[in-house]
Amino acid sequence: MMQRYFTDKTLTVGEVFTASSEETHHMKNVMRFRPEDTFHIVDGEQRTFLCEVTSVDGTVECRPVEEVEESPELPVRVSIYCPLLKGEKFDWMVQKATELGAHEFSIYDADRSIVKLDGRKRGKRLERYGKIIREASEQSRRQHIPEIAFVPSVKQLSFDAFDHVLFAYEGNASNPAASLHEALQSLGEGDRIAFIFGPEGGFSEAETEELSSHNSIRLGPRILRAETAPLYALSAISAKLE
Amino acid sequence: MMQRYFTDKTLTVGEVFTASSEETHHMKNVMRFRPEDTFHIVDGEQRTFLCEVTSVDGTVECRPVEEVEESPELPVRVSIYCPLLKGEKFDWMVQKATELGAHEFSIYDADRSIVKLDGRKRGKRLERYGKIIREASEQSRRQHIPEIAFVPSVKQLSFDAFDHVLFAYEGNASNPAASLHEALQSLGEGDRIAFIFGPEGGFSEAETEELSSHNSIRLGPRILRAETAPLYALSAISAKLE
Repeated sequence: MMQRYFTDKTLTVGEVFTASSEETHHMKNVMRFRPEDTFHIVDGEQRTFLCEVTSVDGTVECRPVEEVEESPELPVRVSIYCPLLKGEKFDWMVQKATELGAHEFSIYDADRSIVKLDGRKRGKRLERYGKIIREASEQSRRQHIPEIAFVPSVKQLSFDAFDHVLFAYEGNASNPAASLHEALQSLGEGDRIAFIFGPEGGFSEAETEELSSHNSIRLGPRILRAETAPLYALSAISAKLE
Repeated sequence: MMQRYFTDKTLTVGEVFTASSEETHHMKNVMRFRPEDTFHIVDGEQRTFLCEVTSVDGTVECRPVEEVEESPELPVRVSIYCPLLKGEKFDWMVQKATELGAHEFSIYDADRSIVKLDGRKRGKRLERYGKIIREASEQSRRQHIPEIAFVPSVKQLSFDAFDHVLFAYEGNASNPAASLHEALQSLGEGDRIAFIFGPEGGFSEAETEELSSHNSIRLGPRILRAETAPLYALSAISAKLE
């Protein structure tokens, strides 16, 4: 499969550009690129180009050969609201959810959150998650790299910016009426969706109360682990709309 | 959440039975059960009972209090055909796919399989996967514990026993016509589905040729990692049918 990179630059077919130091390292030491080798690169305008290496020296010079038509993004923007999870669970949820088309991640403080981090640790975590997300975006051929940030508790959050606010309430496992399939009927192209998932211990009563004004949905009759629920939701949305 | 066990016995409401040695250990040392503590147990007929501990001594004696109405199983039987994957990827695919309702797992020899195991190692692996599957079945409140086995290459396999044979061909990422959503329209309750997934390197040309007589489908426009694809498929099936 063709190697894929992302750049903040705005590229133009035929106009040679110099790869960033980050890419340069990967191109020279991992891919061992030589002149005329090709790769895909997504520019700051989220356009994908077939690109050709023109010279490899201290720097790597590249020329966009042609723009590639792609539409790897979900037709709706799904923002995943999820608290930190134990061990590596959050790492791979973020990796998989990126493959599955998540638009962004908001890490909120849940009442029953097991993992708590101070500011410095949060910074380090965001770095790590950013790297995981970037690699997953390249691997799954995304044009958009999801952003990730820490946000307050659901009680302090406003979801006014969203067209739909869904929360995955495990209490619905035995409530077919809360079918996600139903909720998906009302999605329109370009809609912004906030999808809220609980921690390992589930939502607190206060959170359930707080979220009760939103669309409480069911992710099938089985009890899914906290890290599995977002993947179910994104897969179902993709299968329905793509 | 109420503790859940599985037994091969056929249980009857009111008839006291002795927990198996396996369960006894967990009941005494992990759950620290005392008389009148309750739990759920699924019997050999795949019926779920609310059960009460009547005595804890060398053995744990239990009485089924009432049968519990549940329908945690997918309305179709999905058999996941997947080769072994590197590192822990296969472990968690199996865990997640069990949560998501997979009926059984068949580990086939793919032309591009990276992981190869001899007979002895295969036995150990099946033990490990069996444990993962059993725990995931308890956690997600399944009534059926998926079976797992090693099978030959797709060229040597017959899929005659299945009502539908789908294979997730990554070449379809840019082929909306191969939509899974379409394929799901034709599923009927109780249908048996073989869902075939490739290894990290994808299907070989020979395998693609071999499988071309079956329904080649697309799991969205993004390239999913080998371990992610089965979770997408099961989630989509659940969201559509449950």
